[in-house]
Amino acid sequence: MTAATYDVLGIGNAIFDIMAQTDDAFLGSHGMAKGSMSLIDEARAKAIYDAMGPATEISGGSAANTIVGIASFGGRAAFVGKVKDDKIGKLYTHDIRAANVTFTTSAATDGVATGCSYILVTPDGERTMNTYLGAAQNLSPADIDEQQIASAAVTYLEGYLWDPKDAKEAFVKASKIAHGVGRQVALTLSDAFCISRYRSEFVDLIRGGTVDIVFANESELLSLYESNDFDAALKQLRTDAKLAAVTRSEKGCVVVAKDSVTAVAASPVAKVVDTTGAGDLFAAGFLYGLAINAGHQRAGELGCLAAAEVIQHIGARPQVSLKELARKKLAG
Amino acid sequence: MTAATYDVLGIGNAIFDIMAQTDDAFLGSHGMAKGSMSLIDEARAKAIYDAMGPATEISGGSAANTIVGIASFGGRAAFVGKVKDDKIGKLYTHDIRAANVTFTTSAATDGVATGCSYILVTPDGERTMNTYLGAAQNLSPADIDEQQIASAAVTYLEGYLWDPKDAKEAFVKASKIAHGVGRQVALTLSDAFCISRYRSEFVDLIRGGTVDIVFANESELLSLYESNDFDAALKQLRTDAKLAAVTRSEKGCVVVAKDSVTAVAASPVAKVVDTTGAGDLFAAGFLYGLAINAGHQRAGELGCLAAAEVIQHIGARPQVSLKELARKKLAG
Repeated sequence: MTAATYDVLGIGNAIFDIMAQTDDAFLGSHGMAKGSMSLIDEARAKAIYDAMGPATEISGGSAANTIVGIASFGGRAAFVGKVKDDKIGKLYTHDIRAANVTFTTSAATDGVATGCSYILVTPDGERTMNTYLGAAQNLSPADIDEQQIASAAVTYLEGYLWDPKDAKEAFVKASKIAHGVGRQVALTLSDAFCISRYRSEFVDLIRGGTVDIVFANESELLSLYESNDFDAALKQLRTDAKLAAVTRSEKGCVVVAKDSVTAVAASPVAKVVDTTGAGDLFAAGFLYGLAINAGHQRAGELGCLAAAEVIQHIGARPQVSLKELARKKLAG
Repeated sequence: MTAATYDVLGIGNAIFDIMAQTDDAFLGSHGMAKGSMSLIDEARAKAIYDAMGPATEISGGSAANTIVGIASFGGRAAFVGKVKDDKIGKLYTHDIRAANVTFTTSAATDGVATGCSYILVTPDGERTMNTYLGAAQNLSPADIDEQQIASAAVTYLEGYLWDPKDAKEAFVKASKIAHGVGRQVALTLSDAFCISRYRSEFVDLIRGGTVDIVFANESELLSLYESNDFDAALKQLRTDAKLAAVTRSEKGCVVVAKDSVTAVAASPVAKVVDTTGAGDLFAAGFLYGLAINAGHQRAGELGCLAAAEVIQHIGARPQVSLKELARKKLAG
């Protein structure tokens, strides 16, 4: 196996975040399940946008956020995702490339606009996402460059890719290429509601070895195994997955492998402003930790550190150099 | 004189802010004068954007920021400014209307794109702005609605309007309408470099009574009178202007009228993140204070409070309700 060009290559929905503060009543009156990601059509997007408050725009997308985080740690990172060549698509492309991420997926020249997520942040810092996939749903197997996938030590996939049909096929193609050359494949389960849509397929992916590393939070883990018992679900995950990291908000995370269970404490947080990207940035730190052979404990710490940074401001991309942050906070 | 419909109507360049963190070396290598606002053309905009880091987008524009601040305090506010009916123009229009500001200026249907400012924020929190005026420069006297201007207790104008020729004429038309019905006109000097372009015209506006209320910071005041002596310049301003508020960063502000000088301390700030909008939000608090007849001391305090809020996060629009903030901080 030749040396990898990228530590991690992420494939995901390229989504531009349009974020506004709101209150619980707004979520209720618009029929939104707090903390969830709902897929919406253009008409619903317009209705939500017309009703929501003044916004801040920032590039997002789950896997893309993770990849930007890895680059911020100093990792070699690439992203595959679909935008349109419209104004928002150009902003998106600028942002990810300016973050030192290789991004070469061709932009769509016609069809629907670049995808946007209308994200409502409540005073408790929780985010509720309403995503119009737009051009992201046109990511297809043709966008998967065999050589590029083969050159990444880890190919990282988001569960949200299971929603658009062609993207799912791109996902499967990429994982086959990666495994064909002995690379690893990682998957984040993305969202409890996403799992409820594709539960058996996700279990098969994990159990069948299509993915090597699994990321989930508590509610996703419980949803995956339709359980109310965290310990039992974790035990099942250990049986099914080679390596998994389960995030537990203020309780930190648990890293489980066949022969080990490693609990890692959360990083201190002064005030939770916006949880958007918490899981994405945890995955960034953890995968970067694996890339530098830091061990499960240290990788978990890097994950918690990056998650803590991103939830203390609006937006799912880091506002400081995670490399610097890690150097300061985890020195010694 | 009939009762006013609006406490303040602002006229200014409608500008969408594209903001990124940078370091002093970047400013130097791109020939930017730290803390300034430079007007740039499309080619320069592209060159700066290509070189700058990942960005956050948020609606801006000096007078528009002030007007949004006044609405956040609970004031009745309107804005006049020009966008194009492109994607950015639609985001801009959404944001200002969602902030409870009346905004009815027709969007341009052809010609140049909605204006953008490429704002670089250095680690000290200072912002350096590179503004492509775009559609904003097409604001013209035809966009000034006589009835609307006449219905505002104060018409607030930004010095930056002096850059685009038609906007300057709109400015003059609005001030004539306002004074014709016994309303007040306020002006912010905007920027020391802007003053250096139009010094004698600004002095004439103030001395000749075209404006009743003047906002400036220390460097703008010194630039206006080509002086190095703050006290002498302040004395001259008192002679020329009916009422003026001069901001002094961490030293608060000084409010001067013919018969009074009122110094107001700054509000406490934990960490300066981004000074973009500091002067704009000071003006918001001060004008809102005048609208509720709070007196100079209290109006200055409201100005300092709003400025302190906006410099503690990225972006020039308040992230909390200034009405609530004022209730909590200035109770009693």
